[in-house]
Amino acid sequence: MLVSCCYEIPIFLSKKKNFKTYIALFNSELFTLTYGALVTQLCKDYENDEEVNKQLDKMGYNIGVRLIEDFLARSSVGRCHDFRETADVIAKVAFKMYLGVTPSVTNWNPAGDEFSLILESNPLVDFVELPDNHSNLVYSSLLCGVLRGALEMVQMAVDVRFAQDTLRGDSVTEIRMKFIKRIEENLPAGDE
Amino acid sequence: MLVSCCYEIPIFLSKKKNFKTYIALFNSELFTLTYGALVTQLCKDYENDEEVNKQLDKMGYNIGVRLIEDFLARSSVGRCHDFRETADVIAKVAFKMYLGVTPSVTNWNPAGDEFSLILESNPLVDFVELPDNHSNLVYSSLLCGVLRGALEMVQMAVDVRFAQDTLRGDSVTEIRMKFIKRIEENLPAGDE
Repeated sequence: MLVSCCYEIPIFLSKKKNFKTYIALFNSELFTLTYGALVTQLCKDYENDEEVNKQLDKMGYNIGVRLIEDFLARSSVGRCHDFRETADVIAKVAFKMYLGVTPSVTNWNPAGDEFSLILESNPLVDFVELPDNHSNLVYSSLLCGVLRGALEMVQMAVDVRFAQDTLRGDSVTEIRMKFIKRIEENLPAGDE
Repeated sequence: MLVSCCYEIPIFLSKKKNFKTYIALFNSELFTLTYGALVTQLCKDYENDEEVNKQLDKMGYNIGVRLIEDFLARSSVGRCHDFRETADVIAKVAFKMYLGVTPSVTNWNPAGDEFSLILESNPLVDFVELPDNHSNLVYSSLLCGVLRGALEMVQMAVDVRFAQDTLRGDSVTEIRMKFIKRIEENLPAGDE
């Protein structure tokens, strides 16, 4: 199912589930610079920043629907009982595992279905400065898509967006996440 | 100089040299999948595999000329005395640091200016299968460019290519490196 529900990545993805571990002292600089190359390429390909943001989010979604399997296998995290638990797992386990940082979970709304992840530093934007003609670029949009795609595979529809971004002069990076609905287990996850 | 000699990445790159460390239990899956998204995008953008290979190599070059600074700062590796020492540093320090794997250095030619890096496993190709219509794609070409760009910044012109690739049915991945010449320190490194 993982393979069939994403169209952006799959031509290069095998169905083999041979997750390997390359952890050790793995540094993120090569990833950061490769991500920069991807964003740069999309900026050449698409006319405006909004379209680039959309593409990054879509790519992230397709990555997320695959990454969740790896995450569940590695982390041994079971089903979360509520959105607060989900928030903690995302911040303390997932971000730590894949980006090496642990955002704080904060700014819950009274209904308890919306919170923020605050990143003191965002590995994706090391070395990065937005040029003036890309003022609408949400550079790290891929992360929103990853979160959305991964959570969809565990039956949670969420809305994810950047509320603050150090690249735009904010003091921290803030990712705002809103729970939308529980997805029925029997329905196939939506393609993008 | 690092900034001025690459044109592909720089619009998003700051001149600040605030290398940060996000190591911990950093897993490569997110990087692997993001790299897959980059290759997929290039396959949409360019007409044939050869052009995609070229673009990946060029992007890698521009990444390499930046990554070397981070590498030298982190590794505390000094100037290599000969190509054999360079080979060892690439395999045992650089690959380990950025990809979490340690290739073996082998197949030296008699002149001692050409060797192979043999990777038992290549993190970039986890989950990947080449579709039939991309038989000429050298999927991991970015790595060749990274090596070429990084070495150029330490005054070594090298030729780097994939000699074997598990994606094409070979049992290992072999990167062949050939020393071309020592670059005069006073000349600016060539732009790509």
